[in-house]
Amino acid sequence: MKFKIIISLIIICLIGSQLFSEEGMYPLSEIHKLDLKSMGFMIDPVDIYNPRGISIIDAIADLGFCTGSFVSIDGLILTNHHCSFRAIQSASCKEKDYLKNGFSAGDCSQEVEAKGYTVRITETYRDVSAEVLGVINNKMSFAQRTKAIEKKTKQLVIEAEKKHPGKRAKVAEMFPGQTYVLFISSYLKDIRLVYAPPHDIGEFGGEADNWMWPRHTGDFSFLRAYVGPDGKPADYSPENVPFHPKRYLKINPRGVNEEDLVFLLGYPGRTYRHRTSYFIAFEKEIRMPYVVQANAWMISVLESLDHRDRSVELKLVSRIKNLSNRLKNYRGKLIGLERIGLIKEKTAQESRLQKFILSRPAHQNRYGSLLERIKKFYQQKTLTADFELTLGFLKGSSYLLYVAHTLYEASIERQKDDSERKPAYMDRNFERTRKRLILRLKDFHQPADTLIFKEFLMRALKLKGQRITGVDRLLGIKDGKSVEANLSGYDQPIDDFLKKAYAETRLTRPEVVEKLFVMNSPELKKINDPFMDLAISLYPQYRKLDEISKQRKGIMDDLSAQLSDIKRQFLGRNFIPDANSTLRLTFGHIRGYYPRDAVYYRPLTTLKGIVEKNTGLFPFRAPPRLLELFRQRDFGSFRHPGLNDVPVAMLYNADTTGGNSGSPILNARGELVGLNFDRTFEATINDYAWNEKYSRSIGVDIRYILWFIEKFGNASHLLKEMETGI
Amino acid sequence: MKFKIIISLIIICLIGSQLFSEEGMYPLSEIHKLDLKSMGFMIDPVDIYNPRGISIIDAIADLGFCTGSFVSIDGLILTNHHCSFRAIQSASCKEKDYLKNGFSAGDCSQEVEAKGYTVRITETYRDVSAEVLGVINNKMSFAQRTKAIEKKTKQLVIEAEKKHPGKRAKVAEMFPGQTYVLFISSYLKDIRLVYAPPHDIGEFGGEADNWMWPRHTGDFSFLRAYVGPDGKPADYSPENVPFHPKRYLKINPRGVNEEDLVFLLGYPGRTYRHRTSYFIAFEKEIRMPYVVQANAWMISVLESLDHRDRSVELKLVSRIKNLSNRLKNYRGKLIGLERIGLIKEKTAQESRLQKFILSRPAHQNRYGSLLERIKKFYQQKTLTADFELTLGFLKGSSYLLYVAHTLYEASIERQKDDSERKPAYMDRNFERTRKRLILRLKDFHQPADTLIFKEFLMRALKLKGQRITGVDRLLGIKDGKSVEANLSGYDQPIDDFLKKAYAETRLTRPEVVEKLFVMNSPELKKINDPFMDLAISLYPQYRKLDEISKQRKGIMDDLSAQLSDIKRQFLGRNFIPDANSTLRLTFGHIRGYYPRDAVYYRPLTTLKGIVEKNTGLFPFRAPPRLLELFRQRDFGSFRHPGLNDVPVAMLYNADTTGGNSGSPILNARGELVGLNFDRTFEATINDYAWNEKYSRSIGVDIRYILWFIEKFGNASHLLKEMETGI
Repeated sequence: MKFKIIISLIIICLIGSQLFSEEGMYPLSEIHKLDLKSMGFMIDPVDIYNPRGISIIDAIADLGFCTGSFVSIDGLILTNHHCSFRAIQSASCKEKDYLKNGFSAGDCSQEVEAKGYTVRITETYRDVSAEVLGVINNKMSFAQRTKAIEKKTKQLVIEAEKKHPGKRAKVAEMFPGQTYVLFISSYLKDIRLVYAPPHDIGEFGGEADNWMWPRHTGDFSFLRAYVGPDGKPADYSPENVPFHPKRYLKINPRGVNEEDLVFLLGYPGRTYRHRTSYFIAFEKEIRMPYVVQANAWMISVLESLDHRDRSVELKLVSRIKNLSNRLKNYRGKLIGLERIGLIKEKTAQESRLQKFILSRPAHQNRYGSLLERIKKFYQQKTLTADFELTLGFLKGSSYLLYVAHTLYEASIERQKDDSERKPAYMDRNFERTRKRLILRLKDFHQPADTLIFKEFLMRALKLKGQRITGVDRLLGIKDGKSVEANLSGYDQPIDDFLKKAYAETRLTRPEVVEKLFVMNSPELKKINDPFMDLAISLYPQYRKLDEISKQRKGIMDDLSAQLSDIKRQFLGRNFIPDANSTLRLTFGHIRGYYPRDAVYYRPLTTLKGIVEKNTGLFPFRAPPRLLELFRQRDFGSFRHPGLNDVPVAMLYNADTTGGNSGSPILNARGELVGLNFDRTFEATINDYAWNEKYSRSIGVDIRYILWFIEKFGNASHLLKEMETGI
Repeated sequence: MKFKIIISLIIICLIGSQLFSEEGMYPLSEIHKLDLKSMGFMIDPVDIYNPRGISIIDAIADLGFCTGSFVSIDGLILTNHHCSFRAIQSASCKEKDYLKNGFSAGDCSQEVEAKGYTVRITETYRDVSAEVLGVINNKMSFAQRTKAIEKKTKQLVIEAEKKHPGKRAKVAEMFPGQTYVLFISSYLKDIRLVYAPPHDIGEFGGEADNWMWPRHTGDFSFLRAYVGPDGKPADYSPENVPFHPKRYLKINPRGVNEEDLVFLLGYPGRTYRHRTSYFIAFEKEIRMPYVVQANAWMISVLESLDHRDRSVELKLVSRIKNLSNRLKNYRGKLIGLERIGLIKEKTAQESRLQKFILSRPAHQNRYGSLLERIKKFYQQKTLTADFELTLGFLKGSSYLLYVAHTLYEASIERQKDDSERKPAYMDRNFERTRKRLILRLKDFHQPADTLIFKEFLMRALKLKGQRITGVDRLLGIKDGKSVEANLSGYDQPIDDFLKKAYAETRLTRPEVVEKLFVMNSPELKKINDPFMDLAISLYPQYRKLDEISKQRKGIMDDLSAQLSDIKRQFLGRNFIPDANSTLRLTFGHIRGYYPRDAVYYRPLTTLKGIVEKNTGLFPFRAPPRLLELFRQRDFGSFRHPGLNDVPVAMLYNADTTGGNSGSPILNARGELVGLNFDRTFEATINDYAWNEKYSRSIGVDIRYILWFIEKFGNASHLLKEMETGI
């Protein structure tokens, strides 16, 4: 084993990271330009994306917030445990606790509906920049420009979906204010849960290990896509039949080794690599600290509630998980930003750019004040940030307030032309919006809701400068300035309001909410529900905030487009657009790194590490059977000869971000060897800056998944279905 | 640099740890048997220890609780910052805060007395086993045997010191009940503080990094030994002159590299490698959990006190440091014991041994019930452990109670023949006992003392079974069984007692304590001090506990001697005695390790790591000047070419334990290249079991010490004195 490491180290030394940068999330339009062979690929770009035939991207499933991949002819999808988490949680109850015990459908008839889940498969794309930008001109205000672009993109989507019945269309902004691409996807609506490992495997390490290496989380699960008996996409129905994808991925049960080439396809959410120092400073100084503080507080409140009742636990677990995930991500980012001194670096880049601009009169005229204007933009935004962040959090602080807000907003938006509406209320989305809102009522927990709602009401009261008038009105406050002197005086009135509101509201009942969805605004005003009344009272300020956002987007689109232009001239090259939830290719190598002075992380963990971490208490509670299998060294055909153990997780320097969760990790031949699920703590700032030294993503090794299914999971029928030969 | 690692790894692979075990703390008597040359030493055993001439051990200074080494002809001693901590703390006050700012004497006249410090230099040794064991026989009770051995060893010591005026003698038990060695040492009593780096360097990383790797602590300081103008050891006096050691160590400012051979000489305190599974289980299940819980609680109390006043801080800091150090050590041990399954392993060894015993009738007769008797011994000990631990902690829970106890015990012990007394009260030690007791009064802090004292009074009340009668009497409790029902009822009476006791006592005043030291027991009974009264009331139970300990020691010496005998026969070889605060040689290599799955620790840290860890807040607050020196890459002649930085700390697999703090780390030529100061977290269980995989000790790299003194410390006169050529 040691010799393997040495050889790998020699390879690192000799080849090094110099050969080619591993940064880059390449959109479909760029794939054919890549010289994959010279990078070690054993397949061609057209094997990955073939606009005129079948290719690997036909096996890539967009779950909306995650990625998955088809791994059988019968629509079996491999994705993360945390991507199926809501489906597992929602199918679980005290008596059938799939979250805790895991789930395994013996055959198709036992598979459980994954409510709210859909799958898209990207089919084609078309550059629509000219059409989109054709609708704006310099005479329009910035807010008008944003609205015009939004309307145009919606029209393009509606048209495209008319032309391709049953498909989904989407216009993605690649470079703000410059490039827009229309994507057409297949759209599957009947998704079912096939297999989930027990909680102690799927979440092994829990929050303690989240965003960390070395990792030992069995973060995998299987879903299956269904279609109607006619083979067309359909809503859930017992008559539906498994979907047959055009292409499914071949699994390589032999896995990978250190320094092997790997590539990923997936739907990375958002990156901000082209943004300025001013944006980063706003994030670092203003927005992220607010979210960190708020999330940490909410987690402590949710954890302080009585979790002894498993049904309460099941209600809160998903929310705690989401809050914690973001909290740790932001903390990692804040540390990382400080550590790599990104603001300083960007400032230096910008001053070089400014020098370049000032060096040529033509540039000077056009771009001379560009950076100054961007700076001012964020200065302005900072002034109102506390107000806007509090207003933003307030709406979601009580789920009932959120329900009321959505119902009221729907009643207004649904009166507009389809292409004028907010996306959630467009005809093509409305049914899903409605279903999700009602589905999530299942997790409503009044003690949690009350505590968090109260906190944000208090925060609203504490605001300096701008006031949230709906809250002031609720408490009979005329002059916001006088509030601070007597803050504790509002404690009792708020408690009184909350007591009354939760007692009187009927928004906790799904059948009531169903009915309210068909009412118009005047009708909603009359239902006499305290949460609805507050939502209506707050609504104008949310409306106004939307307007401001559109105006800001208009300004920033304009500034960003100019910045891209001059940066291309300055650098003398083009660059890849930031991630925007569209299909991207990224590649790299299985490779360790030095997270800090004198510490080296190897790129493969093993079962031994699970045994080492096991304390018998969640999140480090390995099932006794797994410990026994390890003791017997029952590694089946999945033993890594060098490590003399089953590899559990892998590290690689491909460029990923949130949304890449569940992305297949493919070897040079395009065979599936792992399942992406996280990044390292040092790599949380990937979203702002990628670096070979610290940017590492984390995947489950396919050998662990197969070993677990075979030895532990008693689901060897899945091994057969995936044609693994095991 | 990467190539260096590869080469080192290849060496690990090829040579491995198979060549010779790095376990072993060799006593002087074993050194001449070692084939050092074949292990890579470039010096002979006689260069290390030469009974008939000068050798390296003449440069090794026993500080009692730490080791130091002479590094100049004028008695300059290099040791750890934490070994000089009490001297620095005791010389500090708000106005001259040497702890915080560091200390540097420009010349000898500015050096400050290190009160309570002494230095011994081992000169000769002699096996006295026959003499010691000659005083016991089978007719004696076990307690009698222990007392007889103690008396004999004291007599040997007194005789030896008479024969060698000015020297110190000590009889060390090498194998309990089997081997005893008399050591004669020079004894220096005037020790002064020469140089200490500021707190932010000497304790960089603080408790967070204690027992941890990677490490960046500048844990070094310099003392100097003085003698009278006649060259003979003398108490502190301004007329004294620097001591000239027979030998001082040559410093090699080029340091070491990965895989270099290193050896250490020092005074390791205690190891327990030859003990049984029953002993380990008692430690793991009973004693360590009690200490962990008690220490954690005491630390939280001490930290909760108001530290804003630096004079309070200075009083508490040393105690918090000591408690935390042991706490983390024990926690590491508890985790490690579980992780390596030592009890299971020992149990298996013992059952193999038992099989061997039963396989031969002669063995069976003699040793057949040996392990069973050892098992019963610890079962018995467990029954009274809670009572004995509480009684033990109670005495030290209030410093005033400790003072009273010591005074009263002294008044009784001093009436006995010198060789019958407890060591602290023998003529040769009494002056030091007296001085230390009074010196430590400086750190008395009533709020801390009260809180901790009260806690242990409450613990005494809660005891089940055996009662602490002195406490029961204090609170008028007749029947201990009735206490539990009304525990909170004693809260007020205890508070009343404490209030009165602290108000009335005069034991906080050094001049009063001085006077009480000459009183006899009847006189002390009449001084009418609440702490003295309680100490007198508690005394019989402490006396009885001493008796029980002697009896237990007698039993265990007998059992241990038998166990050693049969183990030697079973294993067919001899073994090295456990550490016992006598001079030992240990050696190993500069080598990293895998602390857990997929993590590798490199054996050298660098300045870069200090910059990485720096948060600006203690314990990670690097002085701005150091950050600036790093920024300028001002590494002087101390740059490691491979790391391109100044090495700060080093890791090696030599076998060390507490007491080895301050031991010089020497290269194959016997030149000083580092300063031992800690072990890794995984190596805290070294005391019970050594293992090549995880047993690593931590030293300050000499290059960091020299770099710091030259670039930062402005004490280049020391570089000159040490003849470093810099």
